[in-house]
Amino acid sequence: MAQDIHQRIARAQAAYVRCIDDGDLDQWPDFFTDTCLYRVTTADNHKRGLTAGMIYAASRGMLIDRIASLRDANIYERHAYRHLLGQPYILSESDSEARSETSFIVARIMRDGSTSLFATGRYCDVYALDGEHVKLRERIVVCDSSRIDTLLALPL
Amino acid sequence: MAQDIHQRIARAQAAYVRCIDDGDLDQWPDFFTDTCLYRVTTADNHKRGLTAGMIYAASRGMLIDRIASLRDANIYERHAYRHLLGQPYILSESDSEARSETSFIVARIMRDGSTSLFATGRYCDVYALDGEHVKLRERIVVCDSSRIDTLLALPL
Amino acid sequence: MAQDIHQRIARAQAAYVRCIDDGDLDQWPDFFTDTCLYRVTTADNHKRGLTAGMIYAASRGMLIDRIASLRDANIYERHAYRHLLGQPYILSESDSEARSETSFIVARIMRDGSTSLFATGRYCDVYALDGEHVKLRERIVVCDSSRIDTLLALPL
Repeated sequence: MAQDIHQRIARAQAAYVRCIDDGDLDQWPDFFTDTCLYRVTTADNHKRGLTAGMIYAASRGMLIDRIASLRDANIYERHAYRHLLGQPYILSESDSEARSETSFIVARIMRDGSTSLFATGRYCDVYALDGEHVKLRERIVVCDSSRIDTLLALPL
Repeated sequence: MAQDIHQRIARAQAAYVRCIDDGDLDQWPDFFTDTCLYRVTTADNHKRGLTAGMIYAASRGMLIDRIASLRDANIYERHAYRHLLGQPYILSESDSEARSETSFIVARIMRDGSTSLFATGRYCDVYALDGEHVKLRERIVVCDSSRIDTLLALPL
Repeated sequence: MAQDIHQRIARAQAAYVRCIDDGDLDQWPDFFTDTCLYRVTTADNHKRGLTAGMIYAASRGMLIDRIASLRDANIYERHAYRHLLGQPYILSESDSEARSETSFIVARIMRDGSTSLFATGRYCDVYALDGEHVKLRERIVVCDSSRIDTLLALPL
């Protein structure tokens, strides 16, 4: 059965968050196209059109570098995330590309077991569609709160 | 590809929560039929068959009025919600109508950036089906907790 | 329209969590095959291959016993859960069986109305597929935190 775009994106999203939540961060850049945009920002800055972000990467290489620096700083073992996503909302769709928005809630679990609601927001995505493959050409992570602490954080 | 009722409802739900979470409250009444029932209540009251609710509206006009009063009270800027929904559970389905229940968790983000788990519960819905269109004829928002503070709150 | 395995599992999951969150615990064992494995453990223990769990059952009969003991201890009325699940991630699939992983976040609502983020983690499942029926042959509930308090708890 042919999958529609909602299902393809929902499954790509499920694989994406599984990768992060399982701690397989080396695989994380593979969800993006070679040239890509990954940016973490706040709802306030996004609404005002400010492009400055707390995290910014313009290529898969930059994403790989970011993961390497997390590894060197020995962040892997310190905490974990648990993402829950909403249904993707499709803004536009063509044969080669789809734009979607997806809500997220992320819980953070520290080594001592304490768990808290870490971040909420939405992914503003551009997916490159190529046959069965679905990759992120652009992901703007718009966090609802301006208080978010991304210092040394895992990717969202 | 024809969509089944799960998908149609899941997508209508995604549009509904996006509307609220993005702050486009003027669009919110459009998710309902002209004559409709919107009620926010607690699990305790719902189980005991009490129809009194913390919020009650019997028409789209009443929903529009509610949004207008929120705007006048300048609530829009004070906080935001982030809804996460479960899969809709279909209770019954005909050509013209479907009944479903859907779990929700809502986080509230205050202007100062503080984020908390605001409400959990389930939507008990009756959807009117008309061709591709799906509108709410009835939404009973059953909050799990009896402590919920709906004073001046955004809709759930 | 034939449902694909993602949809079948997603709907079985929605029914499962609805059963628990509505307090219909007597129905809960029916989601499992006669011979089954249900285990609640932590991410740390799961990663280290330790099979000891906080809850363990090897048959539907043991699940029924557990529910009976909760009833005798009068746990039912003391608190409620609200589960939110992610999309199931399908690891393997055959005509008779599917393996999947699904993220969860569970909020706990106490009788006094206080609500908290109770548990996060993932279900590691083996589903037995038989025509339209989908039953759990195995569910390992892997909680992210090692602090989880399962004393007298409802099932996850």
